[in-house]
Parts: sequence; C-alpha cells; structure tokens
Amino acid sequence: MNIIEGGITAATGFLANGIACGLKKRKKDLALVVSEQPCTFAGSFTTNLVKAAPVLWDQALVKSQETVKAILINSGNANACTGEQGSKDTKAMASLAAQSLTKKQHPTTTNEVLVCSTGVIGVPLPMEIVEKGIALITKNLKTGREAALEAAQAICTTDTFTKEVAVDFMVGNKAVHIGGMAKGSGMIHPNMATMLSFITTDATVSKQSLQALLGESVVDSYNMISVDGDTSTNDTVLVLANGMSGSPMIDEVSPDWDSFKEAFLFVHTSLAKAIVRDGEGAGKFIEVTVTGAMDKASAQALARSVVSSNLVKAAFFGSDANWGRILCAMGYSGAAFDPDTVALSFKSEKGSIQVLSAGQPLAFDERRAKSILLEREVEVHAKVGDGLGSGTAWGCDLSYEYVRINGDYRS
Amino acid sequence: MNIIEGGITAATGFLANGIACGLKKRKKDLALVVSEQPCTFAGSFTTNLVKAAPVLWDQALVKSQETVKAILINSGNANACTGEQGSKDTKAMASLAAQSLTKKQHPTTTNEVLVCSTGVIGVPLPMEIVEKGIALITKNLKTGREAALEAAQAICTTDTFTKEVAVDFMVGNKAVHIGGMAKGSGMIHPNMATMLSFITTDATVSKQSLQALLGESVVDSYNMISVDGDTSTNDTVLVLANGMSGSPMIDEVSPDWDSFKEAFLFVHTSLAKAIVRDGEGAGKFIEVTVTGAMDKASAQALARSVVSSNLVKAAFFGSDANWGRILCAMGYSGAAFDPDTVALSFKSEKGSIQVLSAGQPLAFDERRAKSILLEREVEVHAKVGDGLGSGTAWGCDLSYEYVRINGDYRS
Repeated sequence: MNIIEGGITAATGFLANGIACGLKKRKKDLALVVSEQPCTFAGSFTTNLVKAAPVLWDQALVKSQETVKAILINSGNANACTGEQGSKDTKAMASLAAQSLTKKQHPTTTNEVLVCSTGVIGVPLPMEIVEKGIALITKNLKTGREAALEAAQAICTTDTFTKEVAVDFMVGNKAVHIGGMAKGSGMIHPNMATMLSFITTDATVSKQSLQALLGESVVDSYNMISVDGDTSTNDTVLVLANGMSGSPMIDEVSPDWDSFKEAFLFVHTSLAKAIVRDGEGAGKFIEVTVTGAMDKASAQALARSVVSSNLVKAAFFGSDANWGRILCAMGYSGAAFDPDTVALSFKSEKGSIQVLSAGQPLAFDERRAKSILLEREVEVHAKVGDGLGSGTAWGCDLSYEYVRINGDYRS
Repeated sequence: MNIIEGGITAATGFLANGIACGLKKRKKDLALVVSEQPCTFAGSFTTNLVKAAPVLWDQALVKSQETVKAILINSGNANACTGEQGSKDTKAMASLAAQSLTKKQHPTTTNEVLVCSTGVIGVPLPMEIVEKGIALITKNLKTGREAALEAAQAICTTDTFTKEVAVDFMVGNKAVHIGGMAKGSGMIHPNMATMLSFITTDATVSKQSLQALLGESVVDSYNMISVDGDTSTNDTVLVLANGMSGSPMIDEVSPDWDSFKEAFLFVHTSLAKAIVRDGEGAGKFIEVTVTGAMDKASAQALARSVVSSNLVKAAFFGSDANWGRILCAMGYSGAAFDPDTVALSFKSEKGSIQVLSAGQPLAFDERRAKSILLEREVEVHAKVGDGLGSGTAWGCDLSYEYVRINGDYRS
C-alpha cells in the first residue's frame, strides 16, 4: 500500500466540485461527488435517536438501492430537527441534483443521490439558495486534485484544515485506489458511526462485502475518537466503489482481501485522526493505547474513556502529568481491570516517562514530565494486566478556545 | 418539615470541628464529626473501579459494623491510587482518631470511625501532619452552628462556598432533625453514589431502613447532577442516626416514614444542588425537567444527558438558545422517546419561551430568549410524549474558568 497525494477524486472515474452557494458567509458550503459508473456502496450512521433528515434518506437508500452515483453535501445547516419540511428538502436536493446531473450527461435518478448536511441544528434549509447552488455545482465537475480539494473545503464547518487521504495498492495486476475526505470538528463522539466522512474507490467490491467491512472499520477508527463527548445527529460515513480500476472482484475470500482491508482501515483511521487533530479549540493531539486488557473491546473502552474525560483533557491543556485523572477515567469506563496491575507512561518527541507501576505511584521528575507533555502530540501507554486485548483511542485537549467557539455563537 | 439554620450539628448529640492541619496552605483541611451515642449508619459509594483507600475502609465498615460514632475527613489529598500505603494510612487515621476521642471522654474504637479524603489523586498522605491534626481536632469538639460551619469549611477543595442544610419535623411528639454538609466541585458525575456528603440525624432508624432509604435517595439527588462527566474515585455519602431525639423507631411501615423520607430526600437534594451551583467555573445553574417519558428512569436519563453535554453547557455559558444541542443530547441518552413529540421551553426569572412544539421548531424572539438565558438560574422543560415518567437533573455551564481551574494546576 502506498500513501499518495489526493482525496475524494483519487480513484478512477470520480468527479467532484465544491462551491460557495450562500449558506455560509463567503465560504464554500456545497460539495458534489459523482461517479462516471454506478457504484456499490455502504453507509454507517449515527446511533443518536434524533437523526437529521439526510441521515434518514441515506439509510433508506442503503436498504433499498443496489447502486448509487452521487453524494451531495452541504455545510452551514445540518437539516436536523427540521420536521417534515426537512425530509422534503432532502428529497428535493436529491431530485434537483439528479435532474441537473442528467442534463450534464451524467444520467442519474433521485434514488442514486446520497445527501449529507452539517452545520446548525433546527433551522430549515433556505431551499432557493440550495437550488441555485445545485444548478451551479453540476456545471464544473472535474477529476483531479483541485476538484477534490474544493469539495473537501466545502464540507467544513468549524474545521481549520481540510481532511483528505488517498492510497493505492495492487489487486491482481491492477492498481486500485481508495481516497476520502472528512470533516469535524465539534459534536464529535461517534458511536457505531461517525462524522461526515466520504470514501471512494475504483475497486470492484460487492455491496455486502463493502458494508461488512465498513462496519468492522468504524469500530477501530471513528468510534475511537472523541472531541467533546457529544454524539451528533448527522454522523455519516459513506463509501462508494465503482469498479473502474478494472480489478477483479474482491470479497472476503479473495487473496487480495487483506490488502484491501488494510488500505480501507488506514484511510478511515487517517481521517478519524485528522478530525481529532482539528477538534474544536484543540492544541494537542493525544493518543491513548491500552494493552494487557481482557479483550479488545475492554482495551478500547478504557482508552476511549481516557480521551473523553474533561478533566484529563484539561490536564493536557495545562501540560500537567495528572495521571490520577487518567486512572480515574479508566475506572469508570465500564471495562473490567485490576487497578493494582496498571503501569502508565507518557511519551512524546521529548522522550518518555513512567509514572505508575503495578498500580503504585512512582516518584518522577516533574520538570521532565512537563517538557514531554508540552509537545503538541502526546502518547499515553497504559498496561492493565497480562491479557491479549489492546486498543488505541485519539483525542484532544480541552481549551479556552473550545469554550469560546461553542459559547460565543450558534454553530 | 421546616428548613432551619444549621448543618452537620443540627441533630441532637452531634459534635464537630474543622481545623487547618497543614495539608493545604493556610486553609482548613481536617474535619471531625462525632456522636455522643452510637449511630446506625448507611453509606453510598462511587462505582468507579478505582476506589480510594478510605472508600474501601468505609465500605468494609458498612458491611461489618452495626454502629459507628465518628467521621474523620481530610481535604487536600484524596488518598486515591496510593497503593497499600494508602490503606494503612486510612486505618491509622481511624485508629488515631479513636484513641484521641477515647482520651477526651468519647470512648470510640477504630472500627467506629468512618474516614473520607478528597483532593489530589496519587500522592501519599503526609501522616506526621495528619497525626498532629487529629490530636488537635479532638481538643475542641463542639455542638452548635459554629462547629458545623468549621467542619463544612474543612471538607472543601475548589469549592467557593460551604454547603450545609438542616430541617426538622415531628415524629410522634418528638422534634427530629436532619442536618448535612457536602463538598463539590469538580470530578462531579456521581453514579449510584456521589461526592462527599455527610448527613446526621437524631431520628431512631435501623441500619437496614437507613441503607435502603439512602439507596433510593441518591438516585434522585446526587445521581441527577453533573459538573464535568467525571465519576470520582472518592464519591461517598454517609448518614449517621443516633436516635437522640428520643423519637419512636421509624421504619418503612411507620406512620412517620413518609415525613422522614421527604425530609431525608430534601436534605440530599439540597446538598446535591449546592454542589452543582458551585461547580468548577460555574456561572449558571441549570435545571432540566423532562416529563411525559415512558418511565421515571427514562426521564432521568434524558435530563441527565442534557446537563452532562459539553455543547449544551457551552451554549448556556454563551446564553445561547441553542436548543438543537439539547435535543441532540437527549437523542444519545440511551432512553427511548419519539423526537417528533418533543416540546421544549426555557424559563428563568425573566419569563419563559417555547422553542419547539411536537418536534417542530417554533419561530421565537432571539432577543427575548437571550434575556431569559442571561439569568444565573435557568430551567429547561422538555415534554417528550404522554407517558407518566418525569425526572429532573441539575448542572452548570462550561466556562473558561473550568478550563483554567483544571488546566492551570494539579487539583
């Protein structure tokens, strides 16, 4: 597997565009991704009981459609808690996009257009603006790097940078590509789903295999990040596979399945980590790895509890080696472990320092700990016994800036 | 039931003292509560897997002892994650207190002394300081208002005010008192237990009845508050009943049980609300009431999810009527409800405003909403259907000050 330059258009046959249609002031707010050929597809969605209208639309398509051709995404308005009007508006977006694409030599039906929205909750979409935007965005669909970047910009809300990734690898004698883009950066505590994340590939994969693999991958990627503990109403991951690499069909018994799986998980994990790195107000990227747990699920629960703790996050903001808060967060994670077996250390580019051994505090050099924790990327390693379960979670610190972003205006 | 002036010494036969022994700089840090007569007692403790040494000590006493006589509490050091030394130190505290009390005409055994600690995690107790403190604190035990206040001051950590409450009511022809004190104010997300909270009463109640009632009461009081989502390693509620009112024995079948239960719950709820009112960095007190839910547990889960959401808390900090975040937090609470039935309104001294009806957003006057939300005490009312379940939770806003307190130094 090679990491390559690119994003949502890295795979053969995918076109994109991103424009400013007027939902946000001055910034890009509408993105469209289109495949030249029908795509098998898979989706993973928020478990929040309050689901935005586009989430319900996409879930219905995943159930009823064998293939799709496009994803239309707007930022600046989540179309969540918007009642029946919200559902009508989502369907209208799909319908308008299908009509407009068909006119531009991309024959598409309403049920072949997935729709995603992100932004403020509870405000009806200004459909006259969206309608003009859809007419405009279909005019200039392109392959290549620039189109991917424009689309990645258009899906952002409080994000401070775009999140893209692309890889290639061989299936038989064909180069296969997987590319993706995602957005964060608040209301991030995905649960069996994630933020908005879009992946395209020119691999040939059945809908069933794709959906099964996506289900597996979100557990180790998006579900292992947290910015603020809030599971959004709009979390969505969509994967489109158009087969245009000409590669043989890949499924769970193919010799190439493992390469595909590795590349697939790498792409999702890269985007998940980028979301946390750009968490609202985040100044630090924190990676917590738990080993020695009873099983993988326990290790993951312990790691995620640590990155989700406000007190741990505030301690990292202050670069304070306050390991008691880490142990405390592990203690209420719901996962079983023996506190008397825990070994804990911090690590960064400045070195590593152990603070706990077999549950007993170690004397340590506070100044050295501080210098390690002052780095922008810090690792926490917790060994909780002799089990084989391990897991890693990613989070960020809790800063004044997080409070400012979320207290100062409606986002 | 009358609310009266007083705290931990309001009930007949309880003495207290609070002193500065040197665990904290200049501030009071050691409290002692003693009953002239043996007390039946009850305890409720943190469900965190990582339990501080004094929690383990008190849990063992609840199991093995029929009565106790005293509670010794230190602040400035949680004696948590301190290994075997921590357990030895807790036992030494009980033993030293028992010896010293016995010398002062309060015959007490080691197993009659409950111990609590609160403060920084992972630092061994400086026992030479604690030992001198215990010798000193037993010298000046008093009944009355001043002694209660000194004890309430000595159990504080980042608290900005003391938390005390007292009530009286009649059982037969005897006046019975319940008084209490508590401390907050960070690492507050109690789960089947709470922060440090101490209740004394001169009622005559069996250990079994007291424990059963406490179990019931924490569900509606401490378990319904949240400051930061972190369930502490030291959460403890202790109740002591010495029977010195001379009232007849009260139990679940007594005619006076309901009065006792009402007063008991009032005292716990008052202290729980005081903890949240003084939450770290809190500028606003938020009461969320959910009605119309399937059952009480669902209503409580919905209400608590709202007060625990960082995004909701940050919106309150900004006095922003961002009701979408409230609905979102209800959606991931785990409790079932139909989003299309929700009615939502905000209320404060400035009036009330409805923002959602049958799941549909209502147009509302943003300036009026702002003026309502700018108040220091704000209520949220959410009706989620026609069920009979209702529940109330209490929380606070998320402020710059919370981040400063928890990022700037080890607390």
